[in-house]
Amino acid sequence: MWKPDRNSKKPLYAQIADHVEQRIAFGEFPPGSLLPSERKFAELLGVNRSTVILAFDELRSLGIIESRTGSGTRVSRTKWGAIPKHTPNWKRYTEGGSFLPNLPFLRRIREALAQHPELIDFASGELSADLAPVREISTLMQEKLHAPYLGYDHPQGYLPLRQALVDFLDQYRSIPTTDSSILITSGSQQSLYLITQCLLSPGDAVAIEDPSYCYSLPMFQSAGLRLFRLPVDANGIQPEDLRDLHKQHRIKMVFLNPNFQNPTGTVLSDERRKSLLELSSELGLPIVEDDAFSLTAFESSPPPPLKAIDQHGSVLYIGSFSKIAASGLRIGWMVAPNSVIQRLADARMQMDFGLSIIPQQAAEQFIRSDYVGPHLDRLRVELLFKRDLIIEAMQREWKELVSFAVPRGGLHLWCKIKPEIQESKLLEESIKQGVVFVPGTVYGSDSGYIRMTFARTRSDEIGPGIAAFARALRALL
Amino acid sequence: MWKPDRNSKKPLYAQIADHVEQRIAFGEFPPGSLLPSERKFAELLGVNRSTVILAFDELRSLGIIESRTGSGTRVSRTKWGAIPKHTPNWKRYTEGGSFLPNLPFLRRIREALAQHPELIDFASGELSADLAPVREISTLMQEKLHAPYLGYDHPQGYLPLRQALVDFLDQYRSIPTTDSSILITSGSQQSLYLITQCLLSPGDAVAIEDPSYCYSLPMFQSAGLRLFRLPVDANGIQPEDLRDLHKQHRIKMVFLNPNFQNPTGTVLSDERRKSLLELSSELGLPIVEDDAFSLTAFESSPPPPLKAIDQHGSVLYIGSFSKIAASGLRIGWMVAPNSVIQRLADARMQMDFGLSIIPQQAAEQFIRSDYVGPHLDRLRVELLFKRDLIIEAMQREWKELVSFAVPRGGLHLWCKIKPEIQESKLLEESIKQGVVFVPGTVYGSDSGYIRMTFARTRSDEIGPGIAAFARALRALL
Repeated sequence: MWKPDRNSKKPLYAQIADHVEQRIAFGEFPPGSLLPSERKFAELLGVNRSTVILAFDELRSLGIIESRTGSGTRVSRTKWGAIPKHTPNWKRYTEGGSFLPNLPFLRRIREALAQHPELIDFASGELSADLAPVREISTLMQEKLHAPYLGYDHPQGYLPLRQALVDFLDQYRSIPTTDSSILITSGSQQSLYLITQCLLSPGDAVAIEDPSYCYSLPMFQSAGLRLFRLPVDANGIQPEDLRDLHKQHRIKMVFLNPNFQNPTGTVLSDERRKSLLELSSELGLPIVEDDAFSLTAFESSPPPPLKAIDQHGSVLYIGSFSKIAASGLRIGWMVAPNSVIQRLADARMQMDFGLSIIPQQAAEQFIRSDYVGPHLDRLRVELLFKRDLIIEAMQREWKELVSFAVPRGGLHLWCKIKPEIQESKLLEESIKQGVVFVPGTVYGSDSGYIRMTFARTRSDEIGPGIAAFARALRALL
Repeated sequence: MWKPDRNSKKPLYAQIADHVEQRIAFGEFPPGSLLPSERKFAELLGVNRSTVILAFDELRSLGIIESRTGSGTRVSRTKWGAIPKHTPNWKRYTEGGSFLPNLPFLRRIREALAQHPELIDFASGELSADLAPVREISTLMQEKLHAPYLGYDHPQGYLPLRQALVDFLDQYRSIPTTDSSILITSGSQQSLYLITQCLLSPGDAVAIEDPSYCYSLPMFQSAGLRLFRLPVDANGIQPEDLRDLHKQHRIKMVFLNPNFQNPTGTVLSDERRKSLLELSSELGLPIVEDDAFSLTAFESSPPPPLKAIDQHGSVLYIGSFSKIAASGLRIGWMVAPNSVIQRLADARMQMDFGLSIIPQQAAEQFIRSDYVGPHLDRLRVELLFKRDLIIEAMQREWKELVSFAVPRGGLHLWCKIKPEIQESKLLEESIKQGVVFVPGTVYGSDSGYIRMTFARTRSDEIGPGIAAFARALRALL
């Protein structure tokens, strides 16, 4: 971010005016576009609001910007040379395209976090910095990382990492596989994106859990898929619901998150797993299993994945380091029949030409190191501690207003808010009180639910965060 | 890759039979799918062919695989339990999807290189390992790399890298910009992908150079775009051709590679640059400028990018480290109006949730280091040396059969083969002779052209590679 130079002889306001004029001239703010408010600009540049007001006055006097009461300050359409007919209509371009933007709630949350980094964050579905094995990975990189070859990678990803994952998946998830059946991806997100783009066609019907992380991803709509719901109860989805949906809509694929489901935290029962796999074989229906959370199991051993008992190769298995190590590594994987892996790898080459070798080397060395087991053990203990902290704080602050099932793994607490409250108002009031969460409708649920991620906040922020949320909630009653 | 254990008491053939059975059971080879040949298997596993024949005999006797003369060995559809009706029809899934596979020639080249790593590679459009600043980047990573935070990144990419690029683009490419106008991408490929997915809609008309790298990318067809051609002569495209195309087809965007164009190596003349930008302003028509090669200019200073003289913010500028440092870093960038950058960053979050922080840190430190200038100087000298080597070898080996313009930058030599030869035969014969190149039709040209990348091969391989190619060519005359 550019900042004015306080040691310069040129006054601050003139530096700012020049800077804004330059950004307009480079097309960053096209004609007619709304500029950030004076208050916002002052905050961003670390100056007084009065300095920005002076700069804007200067720009207005030059005819470069225009302000109207109540509608903010815009780049001039009429006086700034002949720009209007010369600049592409970027607004039209950015509103086009077949790819849908992120949901407004998610963009609002991201924007709030960017503007106010001090917000207590119960929204971002990731680990706090102290739970990620940052020191371990740095040490390994210092000791062992070398970049012997920095050319284009194998389309399926760095071979030594795939080989390390064969052992990791065997040891930790009882999944037997080979390196040729693995695709390294930029996290589960890319695995899902490749599946929706390359294995499904517009108009295809797919079944997803209700509520589900999938609803938060406009990628499903962008791919033109028709989504059908499988309600989640305390033991996950009901296989019979899938049979009914298939009869009615010729479902082509099922997306499931059987272990500590996002957002509800539920685990699909053993019995239902078995009937689900039987049904999937009977119908020749592929299951996409997103297994991002299983290794966070707090107390007992992690529930086995569907893939471990998949006799017929019906399961496309998705995993990632994002929720169990570090989301910033951007390392995920898919295990699938080789023909599927090859198709996705080929398509991915056209989208981004594959992943960087460097984080793949770091991930390989982390998996092969002695750090993995102790890291996972510590992670589970710490997450349990945070889960207990958030539950305790909730029962203290707003017990009578909320209900939830206690999750035994994962990063989230799925809560029902008892009073009827408008979600958008609750979110805005919470931001005012210094805290963010994700409204449940993002996951396709009825209104009245929220997802509180307890893993992302520091332990000492959990109590104050829940208190702030309680203030927001009470302010709306 | 799994290998049989030579110290085991179990005979090699039995180990192999068990391994193949397991891979079939896990769905890696679905029912009816073709297995690699006995010869290929033997090569992959490092055993005698007779051992694989024994293993296959075993599997055949169990009814797990079937062989028919002339059609290879397949996984049984009938005897292997009741698999056929139980496994999803992966073939149908992998042939579906709206995303088109890579061109057959490109897949054939990649496959040949994977099977025969000893092939002399004039096909891959990248630098040889000794031209990449691998040692410099390793040193920087050892000295300075630390991973203070491995959470999700800013949607536009790592801020310190964007800030470093502001200075780099100013110093090396005379492009004035700000960090908020930059998006870090996984190379130029991802920049192009985001533009085609998010700013253009199916049915839109776009103009591209003929020949052009863009033809090699089924991503344009996958996005449903209609492609129109701007022929490239010794001075690049003719702006008047664009005016005509726009009249006829309401062109929505132009894709250009003005400096050392891929594949022809031409530079768009100054005069045409000016008229092109004027035309673009007149029509409000955005230009996508792919500037991957300019810093390779062999002798004179690099030609300036269009973006440096773009008065009206009409140019979306794309750059990358792939052709000037290391393709395996997977670091590219786009400079564009902030509204465009935000739209693409938002969409990218849904595709892959952004890039890993680690290679972005490495790239930032490389740009900020004293290594950059000397690296670029050395690169230009070495590329000039290789260009002269390949031209010399061509004139020695097959002067009478080929013609080309001498490029003054870039990684490629674009050659016309004088005799009429079928491209696919020439490629296959070349592979037999130990060398690969890219047939010109991949870039949308008439047949009779080839692209020879001289940057990827080691210097001592260039002479023997060209001799091998000459043998292939002569074998077909």
